[in-house]
Amino acid sequence: MLNIAVFCSGEGTNLQAIIEAVQRGDIKARLSLVVSDNKEAPALQRAKKAAVKTIFLDPQEFPSREEFEKELIAYLQEENIGLIVLAGFMRVLSPFFVQKYPNKIFNIHPSLLPAFKGSTNAVRDALNYGVKFSGATVHFVDEKIDNGPIVLQRVVEIEEDDNEESLRQKIHHQEHIIYPLAIKLFAEGRLKVKGRKVKINPKPQ
Amino acid sequence: MLNIAVFCSGEGTNLQAIIEAVQRGDIKARLSLVVSDNKEAPALQRAKKAAVKTIFLDPQEFPSREEFEKELIAYLQEENIGLIVLAGFMRVLSPFFVQKYPNKIFNIHPSLLPAFKGSTNAVRDALNYGVKFSGATVHFVDEKIDNGPIVLQRVVEIEEDDNEESLRQKIHHQEHIIYPLAIKLFAEGRLKVKGRKVKINPKPQ
Repeated sequence: MLNIAVFCSGEGTNLQAIIEAVQRGDIKARLSLVVSDNKEAPALQRAKKAAVKTIFLDPQEFPSREEFEKELIAYLQEENIGLIVLAGFMRVLSPFFVQKYPNKIFNIHPSLLPAFKGSTNAVRDALNYGVKFSGATVHFVDEKIDNGPIVLQRVVEIEEDDNEESLRQKIHHQEHIIYPLAIKLFAEGRLKVKGRKVKINPKPQ
Repeated sequence: MLNIAVFCSGEGTNLQAIIEAVQRGDIKARLSLVVSDNKEAPALQRAKKAAVKTIFLDPQEFPSREEFEKELIAYLQEENIGLIVLAGFMRVLSPFFVQKYPNKIFNIHPSLLPAFKGSTNAVRDALNYGVKFSGATVHFVDEKIDNGPIVLQRVVEIEEDDNEESLRQKIHHQEHIIYPLAIKLFAEGRLKVKGRKVKINPKPQ
């Protein structure tokens, strides 16, 4: 059975949606580990409440990003993690880390990538740009920011009375649908990556 | 009544959609002029068939882009043009030209801008990127490429068996809906530009 680790730095609403999908049996995998770089992240409480093992790693206690990541990898290997899910994790993973898990790290971005790639506030940037549609994107993580092959996207219409908060809520709502779905498809071995394209194989009968 | 000029270099399928919307009475404006920089553009034939005045301007006959554009502007002023519609016009207009018609030039781009901004083959680029959704964008032209305020967008889903031709057809289909609609809204005075945002005022009762 696939072992999953979720990395969070904050609220953990995507983590919550994943926990619930695992509990419902939608995702056939074990949520083995929740990692945070922020001791106060509410995500850690959500994990504990669901009896998921948690680890807090303080980046300031490591002399370099590589040392931090080596420690992280040791924990992941101990739990035999086969999929890493970034869910509001506010650190960029180095190529050293990413190369250890090729096409085994998911990220979610609150825009229709490649629109607003690299933005740290893609919801606000989309509003300020004046786009009529935005959305959410689940993608594999490669060595460039917000760049890897796209797994799933969902579209959200921006209405004239939308503000940052209302648009954020709409996009979060879609995230909470597609992130568990992407993990479910991965756990079922149904994602086929070819170059930049991700095909979804049909469910075997 | 608003006088419109459409600039084309090629096939003119968007021009055709606009001609038909004017003929149906959906767009309350006069299609006064079709301009081409390509003598062989089928768009010129479509215009002639609809009894619209056409002008072919050969850029090679002018010593500079500015001289070319000055001649163009003379024709536009003669016809008292209030809206310029770029429909497959393969030349970039200079800031000199654009500043003469602030928020009075439309362009259409076959993607959900800002995704694939500046691409000369946004349909192929979207396919190769592996996005799950693309679309079409009508925007005002400013001094940067594919950059001005967005008027209308429509979304197209990319399916696994789509190729460049099938995706192009889907996007063209949406273009032929939103380009006449954007012109209709402009002609009715219902587009309000504020910074980068374009609001659509309700139809007066």
